[in-house]
Amino acid sequence: MTNATTAQKADILSQALPYIQKYNNKTVVVKYGGNAMLDDELKAAVMGDIVLLSCIGIKVVLVHGGGPEISGMLKKIGKESKFINGLRYTDEETRDVAQMVLAGKLNKDLTAQINAQGGKAVGLCGVDGGMVIVERKGGPVDYGFVGELVKVNPDPITDLLDKGYIPVITSIGMDSSGVTYNINADTMACYVASALKAETIILMTDIRGLLRDKNDETTLIPSVTISQVPPLIGQGIVAGGMIPKVECCVDTLKAGVKKAAIIDGRIVHAILIEMLSDEGIGTMIYHDKKEEA
Amino acid sequence: MTNATTAQKADILSQALPYIQKYNNKTVVVKYGGNAMLDDELKAAVMGDIVLLSCIGIKVVLVHGGGPEISGMLKKIGKESKFINGLRYTDEETRDVAQMVLAGKLNKDLTAQINAQGGKAVGLCGVDGGMVIVERKGGPVDYGFVGELVKVNPDPITDLLDKGYIPVITSIGMDSSGVTYNINADTMACYVASALKAETIILMTDIRGLLRDKNDETTLIPSVTISQVPPLIGQGIVAGGMIPKVECCVDTLKAGVKKAAIIDGRIVHAILIEMLSDEGIGTMIYHDKKEEA
Amino acid sequence: MTNATTAQKADILSQALPYIQKYNNKTVVVKYGGNAMLDDELKAAVMGDIVLLSCIGIKVVLVHGGGPEISGMLKKIGKESKFINGLRYTDEETRDVAQMVLAGKLNKDLTAQINAQGGKAVGLCGVDGGMVIVERKGGPVDYGFVGELVKVNPDPITDLLDKGYIPVITSIGMDSSGVTYNINADTMACYVASALKAETIILMTDIRGLLRDKNDETTLIPSVTISQVPPLIGQGIVAGGMIPKVECCVDTLKAGVKKAAIIDGRIVHAILIEMLSDEGIGTMIYHDKKEEA
Amino acid sequence: MTNATTAQKADILSQALPYIQKYNNKTVVVKYGGNAMLDDELKAAVMGDIVLLSCIGIKVVLVHGGGPEISGMLKKIGKESKFINGLRYTDEETRDVAQMVLAGKLNKDLTAQINAQGGKAVGLCGVDGGMVIVERKGGPVDYGFVGELVKVNPDPITDLLDKGYIPVITSIGMDSSGVTYNINADTMACYVASALKAETIILMTDIRGLLRDKNDETTLIPSVTISQVPPLIGQGIVAGGMIPKVECCVDTLKAGVKKAAIIDGRIVHAILIEMLSDEGIGTMIYHDKKEEA
Amino acid sequence: MTNATTAQKADILSQALPYIQKYNNKTVVVKYGGNAMLDDELKAAVMGDIVLLSCIGIKVVLVHGGGPEISGMLKKIGKESKFINGLRYTDEETRDVAQMVLAGKLNKDLTAQINAQGGKAVGLCGVDGGMVIVERKGGPVDYGFVGELVKVNPDPITDLLDKGYIPVITSIGMDSSGVTYNINADTMACYVASALKAETIILMTDIRGLLRDKNDETTLIPSVTISQVPPLIGQGIVAGGMIPKVECCVDTLKAGVKKAAIIDGRIVHAILIEMLSDEGIGTMIYHDKKEEA
Amino acid sequence: MTNATTAQKADILSQALPYIQKYNNKTVVVKYGGNAMLDDELKAAVMGDIVLLSCIGIKVVLVHGGGPEISGMLKKIGKESKFINGLRYTDEETRDVAQMVLAGKLNKDLTAQINAQGGKAVGLCGVDGGMVIVERKGGPVDYGFVGELVKVNPDPITDLLDKGYIPVITSIGMDSSGVTYNINADTMACYVASALKAETIILMTDIRGLLRDKNDETTLIPSVTISQVPPLIGQGIVAGGMIPKVECCVDTLKAGVKKAAIIDGRIVHAILIEMLSDEGIGTMIYHDKKEEA
Repeated sequence: MTNATTAQKADILSQALPYIQKYNNKTVVVKYGGNAMLDDELKAAVMGDIVLLSCIGIKVVLVHGGGPEISGMLKKIGKESKFINGLRYTDEETRDVAQMVLAGKLNKDLTAQINAQGGKAVGLCGVDGGMVIVERKGGPVDYGFVGELVKVNPDPITDLLDKGYIPVITSIGMDSSGVTYNINADTMACYVASALKAETIILMTDIRGLLRDKNDETTLIPSVTISQVPPLIGQGIVAGGMIPKVECCVDTLKAGVKKAAIIDGRIVHAILIEMLSDEGIGTMIYHDKKEEA
Repeated sequence: MTNATTAQKADILSQALPYIQKYNNKTVVVKYGGNAMLDDELKAAVMGDIVLLSCIGIKVVLVHGGGPEISGMLKKIGKESKFINGLRYTDEETRDVAQMVLAGKLNKDLTAQINAQGGKAVGLCGVDGGMVIVERKGGPVDYGFVGELVKVNPDPITDLLDKGYIPVITSIGMDSSGVTYNINADTMACYVASALKAETIILMTDIRGLLRDKNDETTLIPSVTISQVPPLIGQGIVAGGMIPKVECCVDTLKAGVKKAAIIDGRIVHAILIEMLSDEGIGTMIYHDKKEEA
Repeated sequence: MTNATTAQKADILSQALPYIQKYNNKTVVVKYGGNAMLDDELKAAVMGDIVLLSCIGIKVVLVHGGGPEISGMLKKIGKESKFINGLRYTDEETRDVAQMVLAGKLNKDLTAQINAQGGKAVGLCGVDGGMVIVERKGGPVDYGFVGELVKVNPDPITDLLDKGYIPVITSIGMDSSGVTYNINADTMACYVASALKAETIILMTDIRGLLRDKNDETTLIPSVTISQVPPLIGQGIVAGGMIPKVECCVDTLKAGVKKAAIIDGRIVHAILIEMLSDEGIGTMIYHDKKEEA
Repeated sequence: MTNATTAQKADILSQALPYIQKYNNKTVVVKYGGNAMLDDELKAAVMGDIVLLSCIGIKVVLVHGGGPEISGMLKKIGKESKFINGLRYTDEETRDVAQMVLAGKLNKDLTAQINAQGGKAVGLCGVDGGMVIVERKGGPVDYGFVGELVKVNPDPITDLLDKGYIPVITSIGMDSSGVTYNINADTMACYVASALKAETIILMTDIRGLLRDKNDETTLIPSVTISQVPPLIGQGIVAGGMIPKVECCVDTLKAGVKKAAIIDGRIVHAILIEMLSDEGIGTMIYHDKKEEA
Repeated sequence: MTNATTAQKADILSQALPYIQKYNNKTVVVKYGGNAMLDDELKAAVMGDIVLLSCIGIKVVLVHGGGPEISGMLKKIGKESKFINGLRYTDEETRDVAQMVLAGKLNKDLTAQINAQGGKAVGLCGVDGGMVIVERKGGPVDYGFVGELVKVNPDPITDLLDKGYIPVITSIGMDSSGVTYNINADTMACYVASALKAETIILMTDIRGLLRDKNDETTLIPSVTISQVPPLIGQGIVAGGMIPKVECCVDTLKAGVKKAAIIDGRIVHAILIEMLSDEGIGTMIYHDKKEEA
Repeated sequence: MTNATTAQKADILSQALPYIQKYNNKTVVVKYGGNAMLDDELKAAVMGDIVLLSCIGIKVVLVHGGGPEISGMLKKIGKESKFINGLRYTDEETRDVAQMVLAGKLNKDLTAQINAQGGKAVGLCGVDGGMVIVERKGGPVDYGFVGELVKVNPDPITDLLDKGYIPVITSIGMDSSGVTYNINADTMACYVASALKAETIILMTDIRGLLRDKNDETTLIPSVTISQVPPLIGQGIVAGGMIPKVECCVDTLKAGVKKAAIIDGRIVHAILIEMLSDEGIGTMIYHDKKEEA
């Protein structure tokens, strides 16, 4: 394919038209994380895809996580991790490290790369414009500075989209007195997509999608509807870390988003393939009564 | 290439980014005519390309001619053609037929096809909004209702571009008392591109471009600067019907347009290849001091 | 009256104030056709009236037909007409001729004349901006390329009105695949007026209005309400070609237009008399419960 | 003329088109005073004319005086008038009476009448928005609270014109410390017209215009250029109270206004006759190099 | 306190923040009258406070009365007052005097003072823009030219607020035929506040507020709810001239205004104290179910 | 002063009017750092002052540094500091720590505090929107990732100011390939103020201002002009770390800013005192030809 003629290239471009028309002027939230974030080549490709989508008239919002980088920094300062029920307890120092790594390092580096590729990005977190207000997560166990949503004000995002910027958003929120909290990045992406009434939310992961047999990628389930989710969980097909991801997608659909897709960030241009082809890539979750053909 | 994988397709899309960025929000005038207008498949492909360009943020203005169709209609009404110095004399009846065929049939059919492909086109001619004011061409010989430019008011075009429409323009003008006149379509395209201070004008023809040996397409001259044009005419390399086309391009560049391209409308997606690749297609004419890299 | 003093003229102008106030910034759709379109002097007067109305702050939309000119052109190309149940069958060639004559010749000539008189007109048809989508008329008999309304998108008209243009509209529509169709001009005017929620629709005809005795102009019925129409048809007072015209007006009123008027286009300045005097001219059709005093 | 047919009326309306086009969206300042202000019937007619002009797209600004009413009120409070060199000395009490009569009584009554006739007027004086800043008139003689122009800020007028209001302006100004001053109404009109770069200023007076023989109205001078004014003063044709009026017009023209007209307010619809006919009424003063045909 | 350090001053400014935030971009109607209008020092202070409020982002609308000045002018012209049931009968001459004093003298003087202090005020009355339409007050007794509300059109006020002006409003209205009427100034303020759906209405009076014992200012009632008003009237605590004031406030609250305050205009900066401190000054009337904390 | 009466408080508020008017709708850049950033009470007060200024119509832009916090974090990760000519060498790891601490921790915490106090802040750095483009500082010595200005694009800041946000800016920039660089915070503030053509730049430091005798605060120099700076440096009065600060102010003034002030951040409400009083606080640097009184 490296020797595709320009005529072949032009033909492929022209085939993308219906997909470009479909998303024209629509909002798409992309949750970016996993391997696609650790591999420099993949990272550059994703940032390029984001610039391309923005350039062809799609309102892209990038939400990112950064678990491995946080762990790396914690290790660097010799911070002992404490776990409760298998979940990391986020004390103040851990919160500070997460905030520094996410909002200071990763967010600004991604923003810089988009800008260097000719995009126009601004890095934000839930603190900016008082965008994501949370309170300390309640329940029998205290996990420390982990926030639970109170409300999302999408104005800072739409103000920037209106001016042509690509918002790059870190999963940090604040409570009403200005204390900052960690938020799970998938959850943050869903909050944002719901508040924006986005057309689509795309979660980039390190697996091919939902698999009937988790060891066999040929058993990929290309699409499921909301009502098919509970049986899939019952059968153990949606299991482990996929359960919160899938449930998060379902919540987002219920909040008015049209489509959610779980795609494999290890594949180059996975976002373009998902958005600009019929086949898609990974698993799409949609409403039972399909609102869009 | 029919079996290009989606991954290959995505890669090709991502390679188009720098070209899309280059033309983003810029105005491009396309003169459409010749075989690309007579062959239904080519016509559908061109209209699709126009919709694609509009969709990815380029302000496209389509100017079209229609010589063969006018001749066909004249024949149908049994109209005897009269020639002076080898040029057709445009009497009132001929003018009416030209106006009917161009503004009534071809213009509205092209507009309908763009709209059917999901574009948003409006068909205009130089009469609309008093856009192109001409007077009867002067000189020793009277060629009838053939107009010579007095002034172009680009407002109706920019008003429509601002509202997201693709203007499709027929080469008819009016004089100050409301009498309509025929205008050469290449000339019309140049008037419009100059008045709009367009980024680029693209003339679709039925040849590969400027050829050093007119019988050998491998002698294509990929680019010339304004100052190289007179010698090329002197040497007979630019000759016959190409002389007015090339001079028209030069005038347009002098009026502030950045680039002119003469491309081969017989090649599918010629416009996309010209605009979205380094190689281009056909012959580019540019300023001596290249203002853009 | 040729020797009216300037004082008398000023007095008459000042008497027009309440009527100008009544229509200020309101939309008025004028269906133009018949003798007023064939007689050059009347035509110039109508175009002048349109410019005047536009100039004093009324949003005028002109819809025109052109039956006689189509017949003339068909004759010129030696086209045999075929009739079914007394109605002309519109084969593809007839459709093409109608489209050329209407959208290419008449529409652009009217537009040119308005512009020459200092107005700012743009010629459109139902194809432009995908404005009037139709499908092939159904029913037991096939009349060829005659369209039946699917939907009207008034945006191209209002976009132009907002920018200060006078839209001049030809009765051609398109189906969803880009095929063009003929539409009856009265019907087109009613489609447009309904979609615009116009204040008034005015149909110019070649008779004085509804007459109790069709041979006696002194029996003109100056106004009828919607509920009075069926009895008038029953009594044969509304008969023949007036039935579709009147029914079309009634449909338009039911779609939210306030008033319909059938006026005599043979009278110079008939539109001004209708709009800017108490007496009006011709027959007004209005709602049973008069919403406006 | 009372029995003019509607056809004749429509004809007269249509003859007004070129004049309406000429003033469309232009600003016209009318200085209103004299008999036209004292006679109730004339007053109603002038207010109607103002509404008509506004309604047909002309930006009208009305400036009014009110000398006789001020004198009436001074008499009512038993105020003794004091004259210096034949000019009234404006002490504080006189200034207060003038302000009350002008800004409180006349201005609001005129505004109310325009609104009652369906116009949309707002009454202002030079105090509003700090519009007309003056200082106490200097010179060897002190005339009291009579203001001399420092600067005019036209924003409050254009803000209101933009929102569709007719500004009705009283000849009161203020100094920088908030003290109010009387201004001559002709002067005020000229200040305002100059600051607005109006198209035309019209001064309504109680005479037919400039007369070669002041006792013979048939000797009316229909138009003069700026350079013809000094000789006319030299010959005594422009004399007495006409001198400041004419000089004020000349200053206004020099500030960029295109035309000044001195018309006879005793004639019903004098403004309409002046603006909407070729003949005009009264005397027009224009630039030596006619900028407008 | 004259020797407060700049540090102390800065501290006080910073304490005003929550109050400034509370009223930011909200509309506040101030009824100005009584001693605060007669004492020059108090007047300058009130105008300064109005400018300050406008400057810190509050939309202030000033409504003023002027009873004593009207009486003074009536006396000056030797006008005999006629009373019916203890109320002044407003004949035409009295109406004219009121209009002149209010709209001509007081309104313009207040406007001038605000402008001289760096504000941007425009003086209006209910006649301007046809803002307050009234009819002659009905009932068994005719009080002359006293208007009863028909409708308020707040557009002229909001048009001016949008452009950054401070509207200064006089209590004069007009009927539909342009006749002007007197309106009680408190009533006018309530009309205006209701039509604007203001945040707060503040009535400046010459007493400390509602007093349990009218001779003892220490018995001030700082706040009452709507439902507490009737018992207070029943007990005679709200009595005499306070009854219409309080009822007017209640009506305004019922029309959607959040808070009404009756404050003592004799205290310097009473408006600032009321708005920018917790303690407030005078008596606040609010809804039973407090909508704002 | 704790017992200042509300009347005294109101009086002080009213005295701030002329200063509020002076800065109304003007842009003020505040460089925040030093003790005012380390002391929690002072920090809360500064954030409150920023909210207050924003609330009263001043466009505030906050630029902050964070040297001590960076040093703290470097120590925490056991990073050995390397110095060249007494200046810290910024290797990649140091750059990352600085970026994390500044853009991730301090910037978001300040933003959160402003939002918690009712302001509307968004945290940015020079990377966002490609705002501050730098290149590696040249010269004989390489200091690592320390940036030298190439250009500032103020659009992201003005876009946010236009939407009512308070931009909080960290001193990080990027080069054209997306690599991030450290920038001195004073320098960053001056870049931003110059690009915005701000009214004033205020640098908060830990000293009283320029002192004739650095050990005696009573020798404070309240103001100097640009031309007085070189002699002050010559005399050693401006010395050490004050030299770059003062030169940076001078550059900013030369770029079109009207006034620079070096104030003592240790004093509570120092910004308010500087801006809202005649006395000011610290040292003001202004143009030799005072443009503003």
